[in-house]
Amino acid sequence: MSQKDQDDVVHGTNPREKIAVVGAGAIGLFYGGLLAKAGYDVHFLMRKDLDWVKQKGLIIEWREEKFHLYPLQVFSSTQQIGPCKWVIISLKASANDALLELLPPLLTPQTVLVCFQNGIDNEKWLYDNFGPRTVIGGILFVCINRTGPGKVTNFGFGKVELGQYNALAGKEVKEFEFMLRSAGIETEIVPSLEEARWKKLVWNIPFNGLAVAAGGIDVAEILAHPELERATRELMEEIIRAAKAMGYCISNDFIELQIEVTRKMGRYKPSSLVDYFEKKPLEIEAIWGRPLKKARAKGIHLPKLQLLYAILDSLNCRI
Amino acid sequence: MSQKDQDDVVHGTNPREKIAVVGAGAIGLFYGGLLAKAGYDVHFLMRKDLDWVKQKGLIIEWREEKFHLYPLQVFSSTQQIGPCKWVIISLKASANDALLELLPPLLTPQTVLVCFQNGIDNEKWLYDNFGPRTVIGGILFVCINRTGPGKVTNFGFGKVELGQYNALAGKEVKEFEFMLRSAGIETEIVPSLEEARWKKLVWNIPFNGLAVAAGGIDVAEILAHPELERATRELMEEIIRAAKAMGYCISNDFIELQIEVTRKMGRYKPSSLVDYFEKKPLEIEAIWGRPLKKARAKGIHLPKLQLLYAILDSLNCRI
Repeated sequence: MSQKDQDDVVHGTNPREKIAVVGAGAIGLFYGGLLAKAGYDVHFLMRKDLDWVKQKGLIIEWREEKFHLYPLQVFSSTQQIGPCKWVIISLKASANDALLELLPPLLTPQTVLVCFQNGIDNEKWLYDNFGPRTVIGGILFVCINRTGPGKVTNFGFGKVELGQYNALAGKEVKEFEFMLRSAGIETEIVPSLEEARWKKLVWNIPFNGLAVAAGGIDVAEILAHPELERATRELMEEIIRAAKAMGYCISNDFIELQIEVTRKMGRYKPSSLVDYFEKKPLEIEAIWGRPLKKARAKGIHLPKLQLLYAILDSLNCRI
Repeated sequence: MSQKDQDDVVHGTNPREKIAVVGAGAIGLFYGGLLAKAGYDVHFLMRKDLDWVKQKGLIIEWREEKFHLYPLQVFSSTQQIGPCKWVIISLKASANDALLELLPPLLTPQTVLVCFQNGIDNEKWLYDNFGPRTVIGGILFVCINRTGPGKVTNFGFGKVELGQYNALAGKEVKEFEFMLRSAGIETEIVPSLEEARWKKLVWNIPFNGLAVAAGGIDVAEILAHPELERATRELMEEIIRAAKAMGYCISNDFIELQIEVTRKMGRYKPSSLVDYFEKKPLEIEAIWGRPLKKARAKGIHLPKLQLLYAILDSLNCRI
């Protein structure tokens, strides 16, 4: 038995199992690209850059390295892709409704949905619409932007935290973790997907939000402005307070850690800022609206999140 | 003794006393224009529209009426105007430093300074720099925009509340009130100038601020967006809380009144929004910064004002 076969048996993963990446923006191209590079059978649903990638392939820049992946299996419809074992969803959460038409051609009873989206409750939405089946959430700690046609650049990090929706991490989570690891991606299986999602909000709510609301600025500009830095910290405190009301405990030291980590990102543009510059809808409900409304339902008053959400929603309506 | 002479004696006002209007934007042109129309000797310091107004005069639209005032005494420097009894300051509060050079040519020991500016502590600044002398504050309740070259339109209201800086209203306040009234302007002398200024902030902080931060929208658009309306009310609650800590009591019913009054304004653009569209600096410290810092000094935490100030200051730095 070769090492390869052993891995197959131990992890129950067949590298020939079809994977679909639905929504091949920066995130989908990066993680899907690394899986393809590792030999997995990845099919990308693309709109933007479809012809470019079909003809010239994909370039991934990461850690002083530059991979050129060619050819890639890229498609303009999920009908062309057909049933898959794994469906990685990296469409913007604001476009979830499109999944109602996009996903069915990919699904078999065994298909596992992997949600690589921002914000909370996307896994619930997938489960409610396409369950009962295994829905995995992946929380991405990565600074990644599209830097050209068919090109994505990772400016830092890349770790993926994995958890299963509404259940302890089962066999599929471990299989998917193995796949990511074999593609060179750092992973961790978290005990509570929801808690991990709230923890991610601690960063996303202020940085994605203020980048847009404060004039189209990057994270370095946010931290260079003392009142914006203060607003960032106070927004983080609010999210931690809300998370606590949901039963998730995030230490207040986590705030300092987020600020420190973000200082090292340099002039990184959060994904919402990129969306805003490209005049795409913001992930307004997933990142700001649902957390606010969940906190409200628990009687928790979050004055800064409320104001930020109101401003962003107004800006979003005018994109 | 004619009625005119009687008035002069009773109010101690000589209509021939020179008045200077420093900063002839919408506010300066409107109130100065009405005083000129009433026969007062008004001298306007102008930059924008100077030649237009010199050649064609000023049009004031108010209550279905349209006044054409011509000729007007308009000047490009305060040296040309010379010493005055009354100096009405309607320059943007963000440009106060310019007053250090603009005011001296206008001043005699008897000159009274009348501050027609937004925000708090402008009278203090005038007193600190040009006192000891009588400094009057005028709080303007008016919806007024420049609607063309040499043209201002009053979309509603016009009342002026008057108070004296750091003193009970004295003789000069009563004289100035008489002048405004004889020009057809509703007036009221308030017992506490500072309290009245804080009361005005209850409107200015949310409406001027959100108009800019939420995407360049007018007051009707703010009130049409439920989360922005909620943010408006909660900002108002914060200002009332801060005012209370300063010793000024504003009833919470005042919030409902402000919302109702504002609904009647229609699609009015607050002055900060006009500034923002014209790429002029916002009155950032006078309206948002100083109230926030004064509250902070009293240990009062105003989370929404902090966030709004941070966002506006960041936008303002990028105008």
